[in-house]
Amino acid sequence: MIVTIKRNSNPVQIERLTRWIKNLGLECHMSEGEKSTVIGLVGDTSKVDIDLLRSLEIVEAVTRIQEPYKNANRKFHPDDTIVDVKGVKFGGSHFQIIAGPCSIETEKQVIGIAEAVKAAGASVLRGGAFKPRTSPYAFQGLGLKGLEILKKASRETGLPIVTEIMSEKYIDAFADVDIIQIGARNMQNFDLLKAVGKLRKPILLKRGLANTIEEWLMSAEYIMSEGNNEIILCERGIRTFEPYTRNTLDLSAIPLLKEKTHLPIIVDPSHASGLSRLVKPLSLASVGVGADGLMIEVHNDPQHALCDGAQSLRPDQFADVVKAVDVMLPLVNKERDK
Amino acid sequence: MIVTIKRNSNPVQIERLTRWIKNLGLECHMSEGEKSTVIGLVGDTSKVDIDLLRSLEIVEAVTRIQEPYKNANRKFHPDDTIVDVKGVKFGGSHFQIIAGPCSIETEKQVIGIAEAVKAAGASVLRGGAFKPRTSPYAFQGLGLKGLEILKKASRETGLPIVTEIMSEKYIDAFADVDIIQIGARNMQNFDLLKAVGKLRKPILLKRGLANTIEEWLMSAEYIMSEGNNEIILCERGIRTFEPYTRNTLDLSAIPLLKEKTHLPIIVDPSHASGLSRLVKPLSLASVGVGADGLMIEVHNDPQHALCDGAQSLRPDQFADVVKAVDVMLPLVNKERDK
Amino acid sequence: MIVTIKRNSNPVQIERLTRWIKNLGLECHMSEGEKSTVIGLVGDTSKVDIDLLRSLEIVEAVTRIQEPYKNANRKFHPDDTIVDVKGVKFGGSHFQIIAGPCSIETEKQVIGIAEAVKAAGASVLRGGAFKPRTSPYAFQGLGLKGLEILKKASRETGLPIVTEIMSEKYIDAFADVDIIQIGARNMQNFDLLKAVGKLRKPILLKRGLANTIEEWLMSAEYIMSEGNNEIILCERGIRTFEPYTRNTLDLSAIPLLKEKTHLPIIVDPSHASGLSRLVKPLSLASVGVGADGLMIEVHNDPQHALCDGAQSLRPDQFADVVKAVDVMLPLVNKERDK
Amino acid sequence: MIVTIKRNSNPVQIERLTRWIKNLGLECHMSEGEKSTVIGLVGDTSKVDIDLLRSLEIVEAVTRIQEPYKNANRKFHPDDTIVDVKGVKFGGSHFQIIAGPCSIETEKQVIGIAEAVKAAGASVLRGGAFKPRTSPYAFQGLGLKGLEILKKASRETGLPIVTEIMSEKYIDAFADVDIIQIGARNMQNFDLLKAVGKLRKPILLKRGLANTIEEWLMSAEYIMSEGNNEIILCERGIRTFEPYTRNTLDLSAIPLLKEKTHLPIIVDPSHASGLSRLVKPLSLASVGVGADGLMIEVHNDPQHALCDGAQSLRPDQFADVVKAVDVMLPLVNKERDK
Repeated sequence: MIVTIKRNSNPVQIERLTRWIKNLGLECHMSEGEKSTVIGLVGDTSKVDIDLLRSLEIVEAVTRIQEPYKNANRKFHPDDTIVDVKGVKFGGSHFQIIAGPCSIETEKQVIGIAEAVKAAGASVLRGGAFKPRTSPYAFQGLGLKGLEILKKASRETGLPIVTEIMSEKYIDAFADVDIIQIGARNMQNFDLLKAVGKLRKPILLKRGLANTIEEWLMSAEYIMSEGNNEIILCERGIRTFEPYTRNTLDLSAIPLLKEKTHLPIIVDPSHASGLSRLVKPLSLASVGVGADGLMIEVHNDPQHALCDGAQSLRPDQFADVVKAVDVMLPLVNKERDK
Repeated sequence: MIVTIKRNSNPVQIERLTRWIKNLGLECHMSEGEKSTVIGLVGDTSKVDIDLLRSLEIVEAVTRIQEPYKNANRKFHPDDTIVDVKGVKFGGSHFQIIAGPCSIETEKQVIGIAEAVKAAGASVLRGGAFKPRTSPYAFQGLGLKGLEILKKASRETGLPIVTEIMSEKYIDAFADVDIIQIGARNMQNFDLLKAVGKLRKPILLKRGLANTIEEWLMSAEYIMSEGNNEIILCERGIRTFEPYTRNTLDLSAIPLLKEKTHLPIIVDPSHASGLSRLVKPLSLASVGVGADGLMIEVHNDPQHALCDGAQSLRPDQFADVVKAVDVMLPLVNKERDK
Repeated sequence: MIVTIKRNSNPVQIERLTRWIKNLGLECHMSEGEKSTVIGLVGDTSKVDIDLLRSLEIVEAVTRIQEPYKNANRKFHPDDTIVDVKGVKFGGSHFQIIAGPCSIETEKQVIGIAEAVKAAGASVLRGGAFKPRTSPYAFQGLGLKGLEILKKASRETGLPIVTEIMSEKYIDAFADVDIIQIGARNMQNFDLLKAVGKLRKPILLKRGLANTIEEWLMSAEYIMSEGNNEIILCERGIRTFEPYTRNTLDLSAIPLLKEKTHLPIIVDPSHASGLSRLVKPLSLASVGVGADGLMIEVHNDPQHALCDGAQSLRPDQFADVVKAVDVMLPLVNKERDK
Repeated sequence: MIVTIKRNSNPVQIERLTRWIKNLGLECHMSEGEKSTVIGLVGDTSKVDIDLLRSLEIVEAVTRIQEPYKNANRKFHPDDTIVDVKGVKFGGSHFQIIAGPCSIETEKQVIGIAEAVKAAGASVLRGGAFKPRTSPYAFQGLGLKGLEILKKASRETGLPIVTEIMSEKYIDAFADVDIIQIGARNMQNFDLLKAVGKLRKPILLKRGLANTIEEWLMSAEYIMSEGNNEIILCERGIRTFEPYTRNTLDLSAIPLLKEKTHLPIIVDPSHASGLSRLVKPLSLASVGVGADGLMIEVHNDPQHALCDGAQSLRPDQFADVVKAVDVMLPLVNKERDK
C-alpha cells in the first residue's frame, strides 16, 4: 500500500501517522520527493482501513497494491476451484447450463419445463420461489410452497436445483436446495453472506447491479472467510446509462475474473438484457469469453403463450441455444457433461 | 399505461393481449396509426407487470403514465408528511440536524460527542453499531454492545437516536431505537423493508448507491404498504464514473422528490463525498435545494486525532456548519427547532 | 408520439398545444382518463422538438413511438447495407478484420505490420496519424506525414486503409483514405459529421464513450442526411463505474443494432479493455453476438519490445486470434473473404 | 508516479523498463516487497505515457502522484485567476450571472430578453447561434445571422456576450464575441481547443457529459498550453443512470475544483436538469458550494408562451432567482457587481 503525503504537511502529523502504521505491525518505507512524500506500507495490509487513511488531512492519495481479497485470490490458489453439485461440476474444463422458469407457478409447469430442459441438455434446474420485485404490488413468488414444487421437480428429473434466498430466516428451509443463489440486490447483504458462509453448500453469487468486480470478489470473500469455499460467480449485467437493454452485460469481466480468482464463473444472459431474442447471441459470446456455464430462463406454460418473446425462451428455442453452444465449446477447450 | 404494438403484428396475438388486459379489469383504448398501433390501458394499472408486457413479441414499447407508487405519491397526499420523533419534527417548515460518530467505539466517546453536537444544535444523535463494510476483515461495529452505548448517550443527553439495522433478526433489539436506518446497500432488501413496515416507528431510508428516484420511492412504498408511514428519505450520493468523490451527491433529487412525494427528505453530505472539507459547502447546498435536514458525521475521540480531515468533522467544525446553515434557513422558509 | 398531460391542466393551454401540433401537420388523438389526458400525435413526428414538448408546464411525459432516425432505420430499409471498400465488403454474410498499429511511427514499422497482418488475414489496414489524446503533453501523432506513410503501406500491400480524422480542415488531405474514421470523442461533432456526409466515401463511426445506441444512430443519420450512406458502425466500449477495464464493451448492442439498423457493425476489442490479453476472448465473443468484423491493434516495432502485453497484439498473437475467429464464423453464417 | 511490478516478473524486462524510465530523465526508486516490487518515478512525470506503462505485461498498476495538469493546477498558481470580460470579473470574490435565450430567433426577442435580464441583474448575455442538436432534423440555430443579432443586442445593452462555437472554421466570425463557449460535446475536440488556445480571449469551457474532473482540467490545459489562460469552467451535469433529470448536476465538483485549480467555475442549472422549476433551488445550491457564477436560460418571446415551464425561465422568474441569490452571497463571501 502506497500513501502519498501532501506537500508542506506538518511533520508532527506525518510522524503520528507512521507511528500508527507501525502499531499495525507494518513497515514504513519513506521516500521524499520534491513535490510530495510517499510512504510504502510493507506487510499484511489487508487489515488497514483504506477509507480512514484516505480521509486524513495530510494524505493526498492511497493506492492499494495487494488485492484486498485472499481466499478468492488466484495468486494464493493458482488452480481452478471445481464446485461439485451432486456430480455436476462447475469450473476447470467443465461447462454447465442451468435452466428453468423465472417464477415457479405450478407443479405441472415446473416439472414440464424440467423435463424439457433436461432433455435439451441442462444439468441444473433453476426456478424462483422467492422473487425480489421492485414493487410491493408485483407477484412476490410462491415462497416455501414454490420451494416444495422445485424439490419435487428435482426428485422427478434427478436435476439438482438452484433458487434464490432473500433472507437469513429461510436458511433452514433451504436445507435441501443444492445451490443457494444470492441475488444481485443482496450481493452486499453482509449478514446473509455470513449466514451462507456457515453452510457447507454451493452458493451462486450474482454480481450486484452497480458493483465493481473487486466488491464482488469481496462479497465472495465474506462467504469464504466463514469457511464455505464452494462459490459460483454469476455475471448478470450492470447498470449503465443505456436504456435499450435493461442492464449492460459486462462480458469483459469474465476473462478478467479468470485472472484474479480461481472460482468458477457463469453468465445469465436472460436477466441482463431482458430480451429473449438476445439470449442466443449473448450465450455464444459468453462461451467465447471463457465462461464456465450459463443460466437461462425457459418457460413452457401454455397459460403464458401470451409471453412469446419474453425474457424466457421456449424449450425448442433453448434446445437451439444448447446446440449452438455445443458446437462452440471445443474452441475454448470446454466440455459439457452429458 | 400506453402499449405500442409493432407493425405487422399478428392480429390474433393483439387480440389475446387485449383480452388479457381486460381480464385485469382495465379498459383498452386502441388507436391505429400507419406505422404502429397504440393501446391505452385505462384503470388502476399499478398491478400490471410492466416487465411482462415489455417482453411480449408484439410489443415495441410500454410507457407508464401513472406512477407505480401510491402511498408515497404526493398526488394522492398533497400535504407534507411530518415525521415526529419524540417531538423532533421532520418535514414541512422544520429543519433538523442529525449528528454523531461514524462508528460507536466507547461510551466516553459517544457521550462526549453527543453533548458536543447537542450544544452545537443537533436534534438527533446518530452512531453506527452495526457497520456494513465491503471487506470481511474491516471493523464490523460493536453490534448490540454499541446499541447499548448509544441508548445510554440518548438517556444522558435527551437526544433521540438513529442507527442502522442490517438484518431482520435484530428487529427486537432495535425496540428502543427512535429512528431505524435502512442503509444504501439494503434499500432493496425487501424482507427487511417489509419487517420495518410492520413497526410503528420512524424509518430513515437511504437511497441505494445505484438506484433511481423511482426505485427509492418504491422501497418507501414497501414499508408503507405494511402500514408504516413514518419515513424519512436520505440522499447520500450515487455511483458514477467520477473518481474524485466517493459518490456523486444528487442534489437535484431533492426538489424533484418534493414534487413527487410528501415524505420528508434529508441529505448526508459526509458519506457522499467521503471528504470532510466538502461537508460545509454541500450542507449549504442542501439547504438551498430545500432539504428538510442534514445528517453529519462528527467525532471527538482524542485517539483519532489522527483522523483530522476525515469524513468526520470535529465538534467545532460542526458548530461552524450549523451556524452557516442557520443564517441560510430563512431564505428557504425553514426553521431549525431550538 | 404520445404526450401525457398533467391532470387539472388549464384547458386553454391544452388547446394552444393541440393547435401548435396541428400546425406542424400532425393529427391529434385525444384520450381523457381519470388521472390524466393523453394526446396521440399521428403523422411524421421526426420534426417535432421533443425537448420543447417535454418542457411544457402542462406536460407530464412524452413518449416517442417512431424512432427519430429514418435513413438508418431497418424498418424502412429491411436489407443489410453492404459497404464496399475497394472490393472488401462489410455487412451481410461478410466478416472483415481491420488491423494495424495504434500510432504510425515510421514507414518501416507500418509496412512491416501491414505485411504481417495481411498475411495473417486482415483485409484493411488501420493506423493513427492524428491521435486524440487527453493530455496536450502526450504524443499527438505524426499528422499529415503519418498519412503519407499509411498510404505508402497501402500501395505496397494492396490493403485499403482506415484512419481517424479529427477536424474538418483535413477533409482534403483525407481524399485518398479509403475509410475515414470518426472517433468516439467526435461522435457528436456535428459539423464534422455533416462534412463527411458530403463525401461519397465509407465512414467508420465509433460510438461515443457515453452515448446511447439511439444517439449513435442519430449521428449516423447526420451523415446519411447529407447523402452519404456508406457507414460502418464500431462499438468500442462505454464508460461505466467499473475501474478494472478502461471501458465496458457493450456486446448486447450488436444484436440490438442488427434489429434497428441495416448498417454493418464491427467491434474494437483493443480500445475497449485497454488490455491485450482480453483481445482474443472479446474477439470470439464479438463473432458470437453477430458482429460484421473486428478492428484490432497490432504492433511489431522492436523499439517497443517494451510494450509486450500492451493493448496491441504481436503479429503472431494476431494470427492466433484470426485462426480462432475463422473456426467460429460458420456457426454464425459468416465468412471471411480470403 | 508509482509503478507496481507483478511478482515473478522477468528481471530482464524490469531492467529494460527502468532503463526506459531513466532515458526519460527520471529517477527510479526501487522497493522490493514479498509479493510485489514497486518503482517510484521521481522527476517531471507529466510526459510519461501512463497508458503505455499500464499496458506492460510486467506492470500490475500505475499510480499518478503528481496531477497531469500544470498550468491549471492551483499548486503552481495558488491565487485565484480573475477573468476580466470588459470589466465583468469572474473569480475571486466576484459573482456573475450570465443569462439569455437558449436559441437566438429574432432581434426583437434577443434585445427584449437582454434588456430584461440586465435590469434583473445579469452581467453577461448568452444566446445560441450555432446549436448542437442530437438530430439533424432539429433546428440547428441561425448561425452567423444569429451572431449578428447577438452582437447588436450587446451594443444596445452594453452587456458582453457569450455564445458557443462548434467548429474551428468559425474562429474569425467569433472575433467580436466576448466569451467563446466550448460546449459539452466538444470538450474533447482537441483541434478546437488548440484553436481557441491561440486566441487571447475568455473561453467558457463546459464539462463533457461523461468526463471526469481530471479530463476537464486536461482540456483546460490544452487551451492554456497554447497560451490562453482566460478560462471559465462551467459545470452542467453529467450522465448517470437516473432518468428523472436530463443530467445529474455534480455540485461536489465545485469545492473540489476550488482546491485543484485557480480557474473560476460557474454552474448552468438550466441545462443540467432540463426543468425550469429546478433552476431556483439549484442556483441557491450553486451559491452554497462556492461557485463563481451562474448561467441561466431566460426567454420572453410571446411566440413561445407555449413554452411556459420549459428549461427557460421568464424574466420575472429570473429576477426572483437573482434576488434570492443576492441574499445568499454574503454567506459565502461573494459579491455580485452592480
